[in-house]
Amino acid sequence: MHSRNLIRVARGEEAADLVLKNCRVVNTLAGVIEEADIAVLGDTIAGVGSYSNGRQIVDLKNSYVAPGLINGHTHIESSMLHPARYAEAVIPRGTLTVITDLHEIANVCGIEGVKFCMRWGRRLPLDMKFMAPSCVPATPLETSGANFSAEDIRALFLEPDVIGLGEVMNYPGVLVGTPDVLDKIAAAAGRPVDGHAPGVRGHDLDAYIAAGIMSDHECTTYEEAREKLCKGMHIMIREGSSEKNLEALLPLVTDLTYPRCLFVVDDRSAADLDAEGDIDHVVRKAIQLGLDPIRAIQLATINPARYFRLHDRGSISPGKRADLVTLHDLSDFSIDKVFYCGKMVAEEGVPLFQLPSSDTGLTDTVRTKSFDSAALSMADDGNEFPLIELIPGQIVTKKRYIRPAISEGCVVPDTERDILKLVVVERHSRTGNIGKGLVTGFGLKKGAIASSVAHDSHNLIAVGTSDDDILGALNALIEMQGGLVVFADGKIQAALPLPVAGLMSPAPLHEVLLQMRSVQAETHLLGALPQAPFALLSFLALPVIPELRLTDLGVVDVTEFRIISHT
Amino acid sequence: MHSRNLIRVARGEEAADLVLKNCRVVNTLAGVIEEADIAVLGDTIAGVGSYSNGRQIVDLKNSYVAPGLINGHTHIESSMLHPARYAEAVIPRGTLTVITDLHEIANVCGIEGVKFCMRWGRRLPLDMKFMAPSCVPATPLETSGANFSAEDIRALFLEPDVIGLGEVMNYPGVLVGTPDVLDKIAAAAGRPVDGHAPGVRGHDLDAYIAAGIMSDHECTTYEEAREKLCKGMHIMIREGSSEKNLEALLPLVTDLTYPRCLFVVDDRSAADLDAEGDIDHVVRKAIQLGLDPIRAIQLATINPARYFRLHDRGSISPGKRADLVTLHDLSDFSIDKVFYCGKMVAEEGVPLFQLPSSDTGLTDTVRTKSFDSAALSMADDGNEFPLIELIPGQIVTKKRYIRPAISEGCVVPDTERDILKLVVVERHSRTGNIGKGLVTGFGLKKGAIASSVAHDSHNLIAVGTSDDDILGALNALIEMQGGLVVFADGKIQAALPLPVAGLMSPAPLHEVLLQMRSVQAETHLLGALPQAPFALLSFLALPVIPELRLTDLGVVDVTEFRIISHT
Repeated sequence: MHSRNLIRVARGEEAADLVLKNCRVVNTLAGVIEEADIAVLGDTIAGVGSYSNGRQIVDLKNSYVAPGLINGHTHIESSMLHPARYAEAVIPRGTLTVITDLHEIANVCGIEGVKFCMRWGRRLPLDMKFMAPSCVPATPLETSGANFSAEDIRALFLEPDVIGLGEVMNYPGVLVGTPDVLDKIAAAAGRPVDGHAPGVRGHDLDAYIAAGIMSDHECTTYEEAREKLCKGMHIMIREGSSEKNLEALLPLVTDLTYPRCLFVVDDRSAADLDAEGDIDHVVRKAIQLGLDPIRAIQLATINPARYFRLHDRGSISPGKRADLVTLHDLSDFSIDKVFYCGKMVAEEGVPLFQLPSSDTGLTDTVRTKSFDSAALSMADDGNEFPLIELIPGQIVTKKRYIRPAISEGCVVPDTERDILKLVVVERHSRTGNIGKGLVTGFGLKKGAIASSVAHDSHNLIAVGTSDDDILGALNALIEMQGGLVVFADGKIQAALPLPVAGLMSPAPLHEVLLQMRSVQAETHLLGALPQAPFALLSFLALPVIPELRLTDLGVVDVTEFRIISHT
Repeated sequence: MHSRNLIRVARGEEAADLVLKNCRVVNTLAGVIEEADIAVLGDTIAGVGSYSNGRQIVDLKNSYVAPGLINGHTHIESSMLHPARYAEAVIPRGTLTVITDLHEIANVCGIEGVKFCMRWGRRLPLDMKFMAPSCVPATPLETSGANFSAEDIRALFLEPDVIGLGEVMNYPGVLVGTPDVLDKIAAAAGRPVDGHAPGVRGHDLDAYIAAGIMSDHECTTYEEAREKLCKGMHIMIREGSSEKNLEALLPLVTDLTYPRCLFVVDDRSAADLDAEGDIDHVVRKAIQLGLDPIRAIQLATINPARYFRLHDRGSISPGKRADLVTLHDLSDFSIDKVFYCGKMVAEEGVPLFQLPSSDTGLTDTVRTKSFDSAALSMADDGNEFPLIELIPGQIVTKKRYIRPAISEGCVVPDTERDILKLVVVERHSRTGNIGKGLVTGFGLKKGAIASSVAHDSHNLIAVGTSDDDILGALNALIEMQGGLVVFADGKIQAALPLPVAGLMSPAPLHEVLLQMRSVQAETHLLGALPQAPFALLSFLALPVIPELRLTDLGVVDVTEFRIISHT
């Protein structure tokens, strides 16, 4: 019996598999540093004290040892990396438990997408846990690849790695008591239910929490976070690639409140994973901003473990998983060795494990009905057309109406006025739906760019200066089964193929970064573009962010929550 | 759907069942006091803020409102009160969740005893949760009424109110890896497992924790408690009727450690429940000793809720159970109104609920084979006899050997030397077992006292100055199906009947206290007795406390863990 051997190792009567000698143990239970050895048997810590009897002994020479880091909320698809490549990127950063809401791949591939990542997760040296995506699709104003009912959520909960309900973005639905939404919360049956309630305060917040929502990662101000914490939410302090709330929310973390706070990244790009890291970056930045290092570590270890009820981790103590990271220095929080379940899996930033060789899977997800450039044309009806106006530095847009340029009875892009054509092509079930609209603020002077990353349904989206360029970009995208494409002068100028669900690349991190840089460079040769044009493009199909969006069903007035143009 | 209505009440769109106006809410999540109203629908808090729309409105005029108290560890049998009478005693004290380990009644009545309390618990306005008793019987050196295997524990876990494994007193069994003990821990399948490891430190402590034990309530020093907390245990700070550790352990509770500390009472007598209270007494005393009142309340609300994973309580926030207590003043912690699931169930110390009328149940548990005074005789073999020597003020005893007084070839009590006869009569399955021994330190000069409360098997135990007095006391005990008896001059001088399992009285608290006082007074008329003779007596059959004990199987040398006399 395993526990019998564990007892014998703890008592020093039998040899441990591994003894880490001379550690400065970060004790997340008592908030102190302790000098001790750590005895490990199999995947479990047997004892923390004075141990010398081990088949393998590693002298850590007074290095710090902290529990493996837990990233409490992320959409791994944001990295654009295949789960195995994602693991290669984050494990050397100390992330050994990741709680992911596969909202993106679920919108494309449904249950199959979740199970795909689940299968991969089980074969990698990190523990991937899943929140059942609660809002698939995000709205009825678009065509997604899947539609999760409460019954689907219940079916997902039969998987032991599905530990809660993913962020309930449909907070308006909660507040009006939409039965389907409440039924999904009920399906969680007391498991953690993550929230997403930007700016929801007062009685509405009471209602959202009373409905069963237990956390929030959308706070942007101290006051909002404080109210949510006081009313019972666990506060996920988010510091990701797009949203950065750490500095604003750090004052929330006090002696009285810290047990209910945790760090998350939400979205983290491959470039940022490479340059800065994952949840380790959040810990490091919090320390730089003045948070006590031990407390910062608590917010990335014991606190998420407690919130997610992962009682087997989060501290370095007997009986817990031997998920450990070592550091020479706490204040710079630079991770040296990484042990997953008692095995060293990374050192000095280098992964030490072999990726399982296998089909990447899910590489046939861009399924469009064939179309030609005529399908992209917009007939002029003599009226004004809605125009999506980008606001510099923001993802919200403005709704305007204009008379566009007309040629041969059809609307045409007008680079002089920076009025470009925006197209969304349904790509899940060959409906042939193509939404068409106009956008200003992209600054493209030639060519087109297109992407299969288009929140949340991830249809194909393209913006361009001519129908031919748009068609060229879309065809390239369809050919490579998803990704990012820059098309001009009749050919592909650069591309980042994302053949896994049209969202993720099976290539190694550094290859993806090279492709990404090439795409960015080529894009900026096409005009005076905003800073992150593909990121901007990816949000233009998301009909929950005001004011105007475009889906495969047409132009959406988000404020009115309806389609205003079916062209 | 309930949550839909809850949302509407939280938003102020529908009337609450109850609005508590003008509260000073003790916010156990953020460690602060907030001025607010509390809106309740059914058994649930809908909102905490400004609310006026309620079918019933109670103006609390700036009273403090705290969450209902949670007693994290107690053996309710120690009160000698029927579960319903126990509830009458503790509910006005604010205890609305009690986690009880029915170790005593389980040793007498087995699963039936646990289910008896469970049935009663469901009918009372407090939430009774159960830890599956892990050590029934305590040892093989006695005859108990039941024997719990790991399979029995698994069967108990099918009951939703059984939320963990009760204190694993057999820590030596854990340390040597006894399969049955480890199997019971495995049966808990990750649920909370309470510990009991007085003085266990160092590698043995690592081993005990690595085996799966999650808490301890036996710490008597700061150093011991600190080590246990640092190694992963939740520390139950115990302040009961017999063991009082609060003052010694209070320094453990700091900003860094408080989330892992909770208050418990373990054993609490009816007299103390009446005079001082239950877990409210511990909170009050902690405040008097200097602990911040809000923190003291956290240790009796949110902290035990978290440890026991009772995620629906422990704070006053939306969606939580409406278990609430009101107080005019925090520092004297005197509880005024008590609301259980949104209904007022006590006020100013007076219970406001009707007890369900029903059979008391389990009133036929004293089952002895008939015996006469000859069965109590001890034949002289010419050798020295073991003598149990009481040590004033302690429950440990000393082992001595003496030549007793002899009459007609038999050992007889010798009041001159204070050598009395001690008898244990098996009372579960009519085996006819009668253990006989000698004890010094009781100081009885005439008569006998007898009890059916005799840890842990609760056989009948009697000490007396003659076989006739002992027989008289035992017969009275058998006649009334258990309790405490004082017998002298050929008749019962006083008695406290405990007909429920031989452990509990169905009478109201104040009647039990009167009977108890009469028993105590009459006992002290029989000689120069130690302070709590019945309590002392109740531990003399417990063969886990050094050095000598008497069970129905004979005199036990506890140090050698074997029976040394079968007389």
